[in-house]
Amino acid sequence: MTQPVLQRQLFGPGPSNPYPEATAALGLPLLGHLDPAFIARMDRVCDSLRTLWGTSNARTLPLSATGSAGMEAAFVNTINPGDVAVIAVNGLFGERMCEVASRVGAEVVRVDHEYGTPIDAQRVAEAHPNPTVIAGVHAETSTGVLSDIAALGAIKGDALLITDAVTSIGGMPVLADEWGIDVGYAGTQKCIGVAPGLAPFTISDRAFERRVQKPQSWYLDLGLLGGYTTGSTGGGRTYHHTAPVAMVASLEAGLERILSEGLDTVTTRHQAAGTALQNGLQEMGLELFAAEGHRLPQLTTVKVPQSVDSAKVRGYLLERFNIEIGGGVGQYANTVWRIGLMGPNANPSSVALLLAALKEAIDKA
Amino acid sequence: MTQPVLQRQLFGPGPSNPYPEATAALGLPLLGHLDPAFIARMDRVCDSLRTLWGTSNARTLPLSATGSAGMEAAFVNTINPGDVAVIAVNGLFGERMCEVASRVGAEVVRVDHEYGTPIDAQRVAEAHPNPTVIAGVHAETSTGVLSDIAALGAIKGDALLITDAVTSIGGMPVLADEWGIDVGYAGTQKCIGVAPGLAPFTISDRAFERRVQKPQSWYLDLGLLGGYTTGSTGGGRTYHHTAPVAMVASLEAGLERILSEGLDTVTTRHQAAGTALQNGLQEMGLELFAAEGHRLPQLTTVKVPQSVDSAKVRGYLLERFNIEIGGGVGQYANTVWRIGLMGPNANPSSVALLLAALKEAIDKA
Repeated sequence: MTQPVLQRQLFGPGPSNPYPEATAALGLPLLGHLDPAFIARMDRVCDSLRTLWGTSNARTLPLSATGSAGMEAAFVNTINPGDVAVIAVNGLFGERMCEVASRVGAEVVRVDHEYGTPIDAQRVAEAHPNPTVIAGVHAETSTGVLSDIAALGAIKGDALLITDAVTSIGGMPVLADEWGIDVGYAGTQKCIGVAPGLAPFTISDRAFERRVQKPQSWYLDLGLLGGYTTGSTGGGRTYHHTAPVAMVASLEAGLERILSEGLDTVTTRHQAAGTALQNGLQEMGLELFAAEGHRLPQLTTVKVPQSVDSAKVRGYLLERFNIEIGGGVGQYANTVWRIGLMGPNANPSSVALLLAALKEAIDKA
Repeated sequence: MTQPVLQRQLFGPGPSNPYPEATAALGLPLLGHLDPAFIARMDRVCDSLRTLWGTSNARTLPLSATGSAGMEAAFVNTINPGDVAVIAVNGLFGERMCEVASRVGAEVVRVDHEYGTPIDAQRVAEAHPNPTVIAGVHAETSTGVLSDIAALGAIKGDALLITDAVTSIGGMPVLADEWGIDVGYAGTQKCIGVAPGLAPFTISDRAFERRVQKPQSWYLDLGLLGGYTTGSTGGGRTYHHTAPVAMVASLEAGLERILSEGLDTVTTRHQAAGTALQNGLQEMGLELFAAEGHRLPQLTTVKVPQSVDSAKVRGYLLERFNIEIGGGVGQYANTVWRIGLMGPNANPSSVALLLAALKEAIDKA
């Protein structure tokens, strides 16, 4: 018996619903991963990613795995055992950076911040006199907080700056060159509006020259990957692994959609939807979790009222409205909701639906 | 101006054209990666993969990256620095195993074989008295050679047996439990007939108990991944990373297609197509590369006649017929062709088309 196809409204922390163009591209006939037509497609994708990252870095490419592998690639290619990594922690993904960096053999210097607050660049600067890398999350998916990456760039000194832009890219400006980001990674499934499966990645020439010569990961070795995605110095592409060709086609379509709409317009759209949602939630009497002035429009964190069962509300939204929102993480698992309006979902209809559905769910669940 | 959509016949070493069911599933509405409906889907996928792997291993799952990451996962989870890995090398993917294992800190003991010949289990047994792991490729994609993995299982002693089944699984029997495979990895884009992007993976309880407690890769740490795909011991799934949900939906559809056709029928179909192709090529006066009696039906290697320009023929096939075939690898780059008939392409029409097109290309290119 055929199961009915569920059509979810993905208003959680990700994946988001993809742009229709991105979904349509998944169904196109496959190209081989060394087909000249695919290589041309990969070139276009890398070009579009440069625009999204605000960079001219030659080595800007989609890694063949999800955003978390992008994080791993950032550290395995920059950290030799014993190198110092100063990591700003203001949420789950900062925590994860510490774990990943330590597995690469880094001496990790954590700079802890209260969850819900942004990174304090001055404290990061004072944490160590001469780190090899400094790392921080631009848009913390776990807390809904935006941090000032340019401020980190200004204090990085000789260190390389690693930035997690998983939840920011495609929904707000990310200016790698201007801000001084040396290594940036992201995911496709948030504001880019493509299914999860790829990690858009960029690395500056400065970082690439200093890179680990033989990273512990063969799969994520940028020295080897560069020969495939950007061509070797002698011209021609060398085989490394089989690229996820369907996902790359989908990413191309998603990026074309965003760039034809215009990055400014996309930013404005995300900002407007997020502001409307946050205003509406507060008008309903709910309290926001992230510090005022540092709230992500694309990912809103809300405190669950004390009398309300978080899981029941989420279950009600899923069952009755086919709406997914997220719980909190760690100690906030049951006391915070995370609501994403990313990619095509950043629009007034989503806001109206969410506010109405959440109100009913809180009343009835 | 809209570009025409290319519709390639992917008769190279992979990716293959996907089963239509697998392509259709890519376009379904996305589910969240923690949605109960997605978790049920993941359970079904893991069940189907157990059937394909011929195993009852609890930890049988699709890794969120391509087949080469499956290879990396196999070694990072089993090798502690200084452990001995005896690796049978009879092609590019055996070579790659040596490289990946050495980056994990293994003392690699290579057992080299002439390219085009199968693994000699006796020589592998004699290479070291007490290795931690023994590794070999079941179906060498670079040479078109099938090796007897059961023979490796019979001589493994206390060692763990790692097997690359990238090109075999879904096209011929792979019997992990019966043959003594402890860790197996594959890809989706060959005989499984799904786009590249996932690595079907299995690990025995015996190997899991001996696993590296904190692998150098956080992304491929099976201890952490197990909590997400198979549930933690306390029940419930723990978040690790965002699964590539569209690819998993596609994999489910591809596996359902294969299992409803029946594994025996699928095997017979691949065998028949490969035999017909190999007979036809020899009737055309071409010489096969892989040793007789050890030829893969799903991937045929052919010697390029001395008077023929390999690249010109491949270019002609692509331009005139939209057919992709592969060149050789390494020293055989220009002297061998690799022709795959995998997944839906293992059928009489593909054979007839290939033989006619290749004949014309050799005559005219």
